[in-house]
Amino acid sequence: MRLRDIGEFGLIDLLRSKLNPADHTVVVGIGDDAAVLAYNAGAHVLLTTDMLVEGVHFRQDIIDFCSLGWKSVAASLSDIAAMGGTPRHAVVSLAIPPDAKVDSLERLYDGMAQICAEFETHVIGGDIVKTSGPLVISVSLTGEVAKGKALLRSGARPGDLVFVTGHIGGSAAGLAFLENDQKALIPADEQLELTNYHQRPIPQITAGKILAASEGCTSCNDISDGLASELNEIAKASGVGIHIEERRLPIAPSVRNFARFSSHCATNWALYGGEDYQLVGTLDPLRYEEVADQCHLQGIPLTLIGRVTQGSSVLMETEDGYEVLLQARGYNHFAE
Amino acid sequence: MRLRDIGEFGLIDLLRSKLNPADHTVVVGIGDDAAVLAYNAGAHVLLTTDMLVEGVHFRQDIIDFCSLGWKSVAASLSDIAAMGGTPRHAVVSLAIPPDAKVDSLERLYDGMAQICAEFETHVIGGDIVKTSGPLVISVSLTGEVAKGKALLRSGARPGDLVFVTGHIGGSAAGLAFLENDQKALIPADEQLELTNYHQRPIPQITAGKILAASEGCTSCNDISDGLASELNEIAKASGVGIHIEERRLPIAPSVRNFARFSSHCATNWALYGGEDYQLVGTLDPLRYEEVADQCHLQGIPLTLIGRVTQGSSVLMETEDGYEVLLQARGYNHFAE
Repeated sequence: MRLRDIGEFGLIDLLRSKLNPADHTVVVGIGDDAAVLAYNAGAHVLLTTDMLVEGVHFRQDIIDFCSLGWKSVAASLSDIAAMGGTPRHAVVSLAIPPDAKVDSLERLYDGMAQICAEFETHVIGGDIVKTSGPLVISVSLTGEVAKGKALLRSGARPGDLVFVTGHIGGSAAGLAFLENDQKALIPADEQLELTNYHQRPIPQITAGKILAASEGCTSCNDISDGLASELNEIAKASGVGIHIEERRLPIAPSVRNFARFSSHCATNWALYGGEDYQLVGTLDPLRYEEVADQCHLQGIPLTLIGRVTQGSSVLMETEDGYEVLLQARGYNHFAE
Repeated sequence: MRLRDIGEFGLIDLLRSKLNPADHTVVVGIGDDAAVLAYNAGAHVLLTTDMLVEGVHFRQDIIDFCSLGWKSVAASLSDIAAMGGTPRHAVVSLAIPPDAKVDSLERLYDGMAQICAEFETHVIGGDIVKTSGPLVISVSLTGEVAKGKALLRSGARPGDLVFVTGHIGGSAAGLAFLENDQKALIPADEQLELTNYHQRPIPQITAGKILAASEGCTSCNDISDGLASELNEIAKASGVGIHIEERRLPIAPSVRNFARFSSHCATNWALYGGEDYQLVGTLDPLRYEEVADQCHLQGIPLTLIGRVTQGSSVLMETEDGYEVLLQARGYNHFAE
């Protein structure tokens, strides 16, 4: 079915039917000029937004529409996680080429509904427009966090420990795997793991809440642009240096295996790949054990990768004993 | 200057410098994973979003970038006005073709900053990405409204009076004027008025607040798709009919003059043109005088155009005495 067969209003009705039912926080949902939302009286409201463009952020031969829906919302959920917040309400706008298939857009919303259900978030509005260009997806997401408890980038102090949740480098490895012609040559379970790292990242909402409640987390960032870029942001915002050790980077065995198989460098994926949507931050050493225990109880790996230093440099001690400067080398739109 | 000369991060720094300084409601603004915002404890949060695409919603030969920035935010402010709310915080995302001029984007943000300053709203985040297609602007806006005071579409009752704020039909007249080759043939002050109707609509925040505080406003909508479409939405949501009179439509003299000059129908502009961003709604007859007085004290024209009826039809009595059915005939993306 093509868009012209059902028109804008038919499409809106169809996509709306995919969304999860509203809960008590949605006083007025889709269908009026704006949604009316109830937040806790003692809370601050969080607001973040992300825009994804076909051909720039995603390609249909690398990701299916359902996973794309999941990942589009995951990016914003991860921003709320990095603030230590609870995600609440999303608005989703799409600019759609007129030859798009209705079925693809339904799958996109299926994926959004899946991740929203998983993280108790509600899509409560949006806008659907046509474009002569590629598909554009805009997600704006609110969350809430207790007053004064938001995790910022700016509180790291020399002596703090640097942590990472989960595993990193997996999204870039997954992308390389999905672009690779010899993908059948690695074990099936590792194929699935690499695919999921890239297509279905898990925002670290629970870890963010544990960190926000701990009183010991002095800075936090989500890994959307790669570890090197995020560490530089924390160092700059906090006015400190950071020293990490390559051998401590939590890179999954499947990622190391595929790096060897495909002659890539797993450390580079972890440092510069991005889209892992894990959390990186700094902890008061006196609070580390308590936070790590709470994370492990929830099945969340928490790995120490280094420490906060005086100065302003972000350095990494390599596995062969060299000390190298890590520069922010995330993706730069508009760079030649 | 072209984008490739300053890159993504140079552009972000430049555009950020255009924005108004944060106020006490912005606990953490641009620069962290999400903004942290303070709302009043007794308030509900409003959330709305709009997406505009070059070639669909705007053309560079019809609107300059500064006015486009104004109008992009005006559309969302108008949604908050229609809920009776106070606008608070916006996030703005842009998908930008790589050959866009930096100067144009600066003008766009100048216009956004102008309207945000006028309505005490703050842009507190966004996303800047590249696209192979046309410029896409996505604005998401929050507001707040006292609990239980939001103006919905669903409360109109037979016997209520139907009102419109300001003048309508002006945006469509302005578009026709700007597309017209003989524009120099009408007086200069009317040229400016028509241009402003189209390029610089004024969201009716003050009127919305008066209506929300009045206890007598039983439904409200903003006129983004044309009066006929908005009246049908109110009738459908409220389960009522509506009867209006053509002779009562508040169409400005400059719009009537240009309609005569250009052989257009001013009533059609008012009914189907849209983008006027005035408010239309229904009032308890016992409260009308009080609300009208308060609006007039603020310099806001409030015009009665008809009444709410039993049934479900939206009817208009024409100037020559016929009764016609008004159908929702707003713009339909993806219709052939």
